[in-house]
Amino acid sequence: MVKIGVLVSGGGTNLQQLINAQAAGNLGGGEIVTVISSKPEVFALERAKQAGIEAVTLARKEYPDVEAYSQALIDALQERGVELVVLSGFLTITSDRFVQAFPNRIMNVHPALLPAFGGKGFYGLHVHQAVLSRGCKLTGATVHFANEVCDGGPIILQKAVEVREGDTPETLQKRVMEQAEWELLPKAVSLFCQGRLTVEGGTVTIAP
Amino acid sequence: MVKIGVLVSGGGTNLQQLINAQAAGNLGGGEIVTVISSKPEVFALERAKQAGIEAVTLARKEYPDVEAYSQALIDALQERGVELVVLSGFLTITSDRFVQAFPNRIMNVHPALLPAFGGKGFYGLHVHQAVLSRGCKLTGATVHFANEVCDGGPIILQKAVEVREGDTPETLQKRVMEQAEWELLPKAVSLFCQGRLTVEGGTVTIAP
Repeated sequence: MVKIGVLVSGGGTNLQQLINAQAAGNLGGGEIVTVISSKPEVFALERAKQAGIEAVTLARKEYPDVEAYSQALIDALQERGVELVVLSGFLTITSDRFVQAFPNRIMNVHPALLPAFGGKGFYGLHVHQAVLSRGCKLTGATVHFANEVCDGGPIILQKAVEVREGDTPETLQKRVMEQAEWELLPKAVSLFCQGRLTVEGGTVTIAP
Repeated sequence: MVKIGVLVSGGGTNLQQLINAQAAGNLGGGEIVTVISSKPEVFALERAKQAGIEAVTLARKEYPDVEAYSQALIDALQERGVELVVLSGFLTITSDRFVQAFPNRIMNVHPALLPAFGGKGFYGLHVHQAVLSRGCKLTGATVHFANEVCDGGPIILQKAVEVREGDTPETLQKRVMEQAEWELLPKAVSLFCQGRLTVEGGTVTIAP
């Protein structure tokens, strides 16, 4: 059984998909042992409690700097024996120390087809605004392992989503979430927990 | 009837798809009036002749510089009343003068999901090699209008293609061509010929 820790900062819609997958036995034998929020009183914590999962607040503002905060996260996750960390709408900046503590064991979902529309400044609605400004007809989501490079880690899964005439950043964000992120994230976590992901030379191989 | 000129440099597999679409009445009323090659004796010219289409060689090496060559292309296309220029495996560099002579009337197909893997150096197998090196799980093709920025023009259509375990640049190139380029290019030409493409602010709107 792979112990999973999920980091959140808000509503936790992606977290809910993981909880649902676990309840349905579709998480490859993984178990979410803790949900940690960088902000107090967010709804994601409520979702965790309702599913009988430990809900922890590690508020960023309680720590003097990003290094101290990153170490607190590492400690909390390691104390609980977490083997896979999932960033699920986690919006708080961490340091290299954090990703180095869990090499190829931190998963993130990005709302675009990386390497397009990734990197500094590309988060939330900014991503979808950029896709629309460029006039792309396709976008999508990418689940990848986090490393020291923002949105530059090994890609696990990608799924395309069409851009439609009249889309706004908001409608596009919703479609990408519903049609791609919610499908990809539980699938990637399941593959990890089944031991089917191998990382070599910056690329991920998925065993059959 | 929209007069179409197709520029080629090699085998002309994409040209063949256009010829087939025209024969099947699927080119939106457009008609290929000339096929111009920058290299002599390429098979694309043979494909044109077999379809009863004028086949012209305008060899790059016969011209002193890129400006003179670009002007020769412009003259040849304008003399024939060409309204839509399709770059179909056309590998010869032209100057800004050329794209400015046919604003939003030059179509190119790029073997990736732009803006990813586009721009200088991204042509042919280099594109697919880069996709594999980054470990992408999806790639695809983009049909766009050419402008002064390499692979930076308004996007008309995009289609995703999966990357498979064990892919080489060659197998990926073949799949992208067969599953995306051959479908998108005749479709985009047909939309243009039906007058359904509008370009505004660098983005393309497709009328229903």
